[in-house]
Amino acid sequence: MAKVIWMTGLSASGKTTLAKTLQKELGESCISLDGDVIRNMFYPIGFSKKERDTNIGRAAYLAKILSPFFDTIICSFISPYEETRKMVQKKVEGVKVVYIKCSIDECKRRDPKGLYAKAITGEIPHFTGISDPYEEPNFPDLVLHTATMSIDECVKKLKDLLRDDTESV
Amino acid sequence: MAKVIWMTGLSASGKTTLAKTLQKELGESCISLDGDVIRNMFYPIGFSKKERDTNIGRAAYLAKILSPFFDTIICSFISPYEETRKMVQKKVEGVKVVYIKCSIDECKRRDPKGLYAKAITGEIPHFTGISDPYEEPNFPDLVLHTATMSIDECVKKLKDLLRDDTESV
Repeated sequence: MAKVIWMTGLSASGKTTLAKTLQKELGESCISLDGDVIRNMFYPIGFSKKERDTNIGRAAYLAKILSPFFDTIICSFISPYEETRKMVQKKVEGVKVVYIKCSIDECKRRDPKGLYAKAITGEIPHFTGISDPYEEPNFPDLVLHTATMSIDECVKKLKDLLRDDTESV
Repeated sequence: MAKVIWMTGLSASGKTTLAKTLQKELGESCISLDGDVIRNMFYPIGFSKKERDTNIGRAAYLAKILSPFFDTIICSFISPYEETRKMVQKKVEGVKVVYIKCSIDECKRRDPKGLYAKAITGEIPHFTGISDPYEEPNFPDLVLHTATMSIDECVKKLKDLLRDDTESV
């Protein structure tokens, strides 16, 4: 069964960058699921709490189906609610929750897609960190501070986490 | 096992529009895989014939894995080579090949992402229909002429194709 990493964190905290870099190192036996990809694969839904939960549920379901066929599955989702992440932990056995930690001010400064700017003016509603809450994970398996750690350092920690998992089995 | 529709056709021929419209009608039991989604999920590769074949191979592999868990899988890929589509037909049992037919002139006129413009100036190399070939399918299960048929008409034909399949089993 695949090792599953679940990255949670604000928009622009660095989830996708880390997922892509880690995937480049792990190669073809690693599959990456992120919020937009999952949204593109399924019947279209919005961003209310219930709809976000549906999207996360879809990802957890896919991770479960794909698990026997890959070595590593990286899921990158804002996944702002502790309750929802707990549901993922129940559904996907052995999933490791990684908190991609970055202050809201730094995320606003990065704002690569201009989403925070639009959220602040209200053009985008239900935006995590601005008009919707982000609940920090209570007991993550790993915390990566992307404002102070380099991408290489973060990826090394992720690989260590995957290795730890192997050793403990 | 899921019914699998494989849509082939030029960029801007209408594959994604039809996939999204059909999916909206079929609901949550339908999953959609397209070129960009698959590229986003796996180790990054380019657009040479070999790399395109790898991307299609990944899609066929995923369609096979996901088949027991969904009613319908829609795959939308330019998939310009007959040989590659034959490989898909071997790998994915019962797949229906649908040719989304639209003249290159009409596709250039639509050019929703400005890709043809860039391909013509050479900014994008290996672009199907401009600098790379598109081989029409020899024996598609269905041909949809998107320049003359409405979206509704095309979707109706796709649903008929899915229904025929049920009846013949």
